[in-house]
Amino acid sequence: MNRSIIIYMLGWIMNIEALLLLIPIAAAVVYRESVITCYMAVACVCGLLGFLCTRKKPEVKMFFAKEGFVLVSMGWIVLSLFGCMPFWLSGEIPRFIDALFEIVSGFTTTGSSVVPKVEDLSRATLIWRSFSHWIGGMGILVFILSILPMAGDYNMHIMRAESPGPSVGKLVPKIRITAKLLYQIYFLMTVMTMVFLLIGGMPIFDTICMSFGAAGTGGFSCRNSGQAEYTLYQQAVLSIAMILFGVNFNVYYLLLIKRPKDAFRCEEMRGYLAIILAAVVLITLNVRHLFPSLFLAVHHALFQVSSIITTTGYASVNFDQWPEFSKYILLLLMFTGACAGSTGGGIKVSRIMMAFKEAKKEMAAVIHPRSVKVIKYEGKVLGHPVLRSLNAYLILYAFIFTVSVLLVSLDNFDFATSFSAVAANFNNIGPGLSVVGPSSNFSMLSDLSKLVLIFDMLAGRLELFPILVLFSPGTWKRG
Amino acid sequence: MNRSIIIYMLGWIMNIEALLLLIPIAAAVVYRESVITCYMAVACVCGLLGFLCTRKKPEVKMFFAKEGFVLVSMGWIVLSLFGCMPFWLSGEIPRFIDALFEIVSGFTTTGSSVVPKVEDLSRATLIWRSFSHWIGGMGILVFILSILPMAGDYNMHIMRAESPGPSVGKLVPKIRITAKLLYQIYFLMTVMTMVFLLIGGMPIFDTICMSFGAAGTGGFSCRNSGQAEYTLYQQAVLSIAMILFGVNFNVYYLLLIKRPKDAFRCEEMRGYLAIILAAVVLITLNVRHLFPSLFLAVHHALFQVSSIITTTGYASVNFDQWPEFSKYILLLLMFTGACAGSTGGGIKVSRIMMAFKEAKKEMAAVIHPRSVKVIKYEGKVLGHPVLRSLNAYLILYAFIFTVSVLLVSLDNFDFATSFSAVAANFNNIGPGLSVVGPSSNFSMLSDLSKLVLIFDMLAGRLELFPILVLFSPGTWKRG
Repeated sequence: MNRSIIIYMLGWIMNIEALLLLIPIAAAVVYRESVITCYMAVACVCGLLGFLCTRKKPEVKMFFAKEGFVLVSMGWIVLSLFGCMPFWLSGEIPRFIDALFEIVSGFTTTGSSVVPKVEDLSRATLIWRSFSHWIGGMGILVFILSILPMAGDYNMHIMRAESPGPSVGKLVPKIRITAKLLYQIYFLMTVMTMVFLLIGGMPIFDTICMSFGAAGTGGFSCRNSGQAEYTLYQQAVLSIAMILFGVNFNVYYLLLIKRPKDAFRCEEMRGYLAIILAAVVLITLNVRHLFPSLFLAVHHALFQVSSIITTTGYASVNFDQWPEFSKYILLLLMFTGACAGSTGGGIKVSRIMMAFKEAKKEMAAVIHPRSVKVIKYEGKVLGHPVLRSLNAYLILYAFIFTVSVLLVSLDNFDFATSFSAVAANFNNIGPGLSVVGPSSNFSMLSDLSKLVLIFDMLAGRLELFPILVLFSPGTWKRG
Repeated sequence: MNRSIIIYMLGWIMNIEALLLLIPIAAAVVYRESVITCYMAVACVCGLLGFLCTRKKPEVKMFFAKEGFVLVSMGWIVLSLFGCMPFWLSGEIPRFIDALFEIVSGFTTTGSSVVPKVEDLSRATLIWRSFSHWIGGMGILVFILSILPMAGDYNMHIMRAESPGPSVGKLVPKIRITAKLLYQIYFLMTVMTMVFLLIGGMPIFDTICMSFGAAGTGGFSCRNSGQAEYTLYQQAVLSIAMILFGVNFNVYYLLLIKRPKDAFRCEEMRGYLAIILAAVVLITLNVRHLFPSLFLAVHHALFQVSSIITTTGYASVNFDQWPEFSKYILLLLMFTGACAGSTGGGIKVSRIMMAFKEAKKEMAAVIHPRSVKVIKYEGKVLGHPVLRSLNAYLILYAFIFTVSVLLVSLDNFDFATSFSAVAANFNNIGPGLSVVGPSSNFSMLSDLSKLVLIFDMLAGRLELFPILVLFSPGTWKRG
């Protein structure tokens, strides 16, 4: 285990976090809020520790996938531990475990909250919550890779470990430039979302929070009513923004370099849009009678579908009161998730498409035993290592999911609650159904359940392997 | 597609079914019931059609796995269509879809019922229901293979398609002798269960029904109260019987040929017993306060656990009223299922163990990328084809499960009902939770839901591939 480089990079995470805390500090200045002292204290401690860890640049010797995984998961834990401090120190979220739950939910772009009335929180805290979505959406380490001038292929291991998707492709040969490009696209799209919301007359504070949440596909609200109070136009802008942030960013890169044909040929994007269309049609048919017009039914179906499939977790209506069929479709979308290489969570459309192709091939082999077929995805033959890793992912996913629901069920809430609480957090969505539905929050769960869900959020955002490697005894053995 | 041999074998299924109907006919004679006419009419028609189909023995030419799958799934459909006729003709189950649901539930050893009060049914019908479990447990085609003197390796394809488990082994080189041996062990164990129940003072009629159900790991009751009225001794005999019928029959064969060491080395059996032990301990701790003594808590935990993991579906208490944690463990056991090569359903312990080993190997490959490992199971290296088929099974399982819940959710019952109804039928258990809990039945579901569940029961019992191959357009194309 290459400890020196891990400590060095953790130091950079603290440095960057200290800088990121300037955003809520600025908000506290603007709104003249007393929580500023808490944010400043945390920023100072964080920056000081970061400075100490990054004084000496270590020599890069050995750095394998294992180290990449350990670094990324430790990085996210460090990020969260400092990030939750202002909530706790200011007393806005009095219990430490709740504060940790809230910030992990932020960084992992989950958006499930333990705060019953968000309007009681300070503006600085509201901004920090929403900004944590934005940071977590593209990834803190990807950000560091984009600014730190470092050589070696170890940055590929880091990028792989933090970016969602079964096989992370580089846009351009150099990782640093890829990371920079991704953040540039991300930044640009966030600004565009803000502009469209402002045009629609959304207050500037809401605009900032909502854009951060939509961009990171998080889901924290800055109003008790969630997204229900916004106008149809504002909701529609959010719907479209969420869908766009759930698309594989490769597509935008291809558009940027003027290869629109290749961009629209993206198999995953087509699958993703097809699922959205199907879900909206089915839900609209099912909830039509709940709305005065077909237009409104489509509007709210689209909002909820794009919010859930991108694992954002915004809600324009309380969908927990929808018929079971619609609720079940939303529950399925929680698992589907968005595209790989986007800011969304879940299993990812690409994994599901690959799994289908795998099963289809096996069926064909039963019917025509002598035919030899390969599995093609995005025009390329799917290699054995990708499939092996896919299968392991699916098995581990099912295992972690199962054990999590078992532990949460100790709280003795109904099955829909336990099941959807885990589904909503493991897939980084936010609200579940029943007791943890969109008009409610996670504060009534026990500490054990909260710990389990914190683990699930991190495991879900980092796609299982980093967190599992961190906790594997084998990782820490010599040899 | 080798149509002549499929028709010939379907003819044999009808012949055998005509003979099997003699059991309820005998019951009708003993209890002087008027339903005898219905049973006799069906037996005659069935036998006559069978006679016509089996007059000419076809030459065996080409017979591949595909044909084996098609034959087995068509065989089970034919078996069920004739089997449900007496229920419908006698008016005891007035609607055809309900009668079909009931008999498919019987043959697939599910045991979920649409009959609100089973004590209103005639004795002949009660016996036929329970006997259908016994027939379905080991398989009708395995029975035919054991009595028909036929050569060729095509009988291996048939055996594979009907017997549960990821890789069906022959006990002895000749399939016919293997099939005979399996039925002999099965018969002997059923008789022993009857003897132990009779010793405990169970009425002879109940003894017959309960033994058939436990042996086939079905779950139909002959009393409205399920298994709650039986004595502790009788319940304990049933607990043990269920567990034994859920063990891989290879183990009994090894014991029979006096190789106890090899028998006890069976990895799957050890896993299966370990799961039972863990589940009983956890549930006992969770429900201790509901019972006057620890002994009773253990007793009922054991009964429910062995009933659910073997996918029998008997219930000595209404476990739907247990705490969520215990209910969730039972729900998990529904998926686990019993051992491969037993009469139980579900995913099977062996598949779950293999999947774990697969995931573990992939994790190890991440941590130690240069180490080369193979997956061993039951002392043998797991080959690529077995793993491929396992992965396809798990993916298709998840897919069918998901779509089934979606269709059942159109009935708008709560999530626990829709989810557990599919879980209980797809895994061939019987009762689910909530609306379809152990003290209730499936009569209030819509016809669409019943059709979906009929499909699920068949797909579950035959382990997906046969039914999927039957409905695949590719199967029926030339070439």
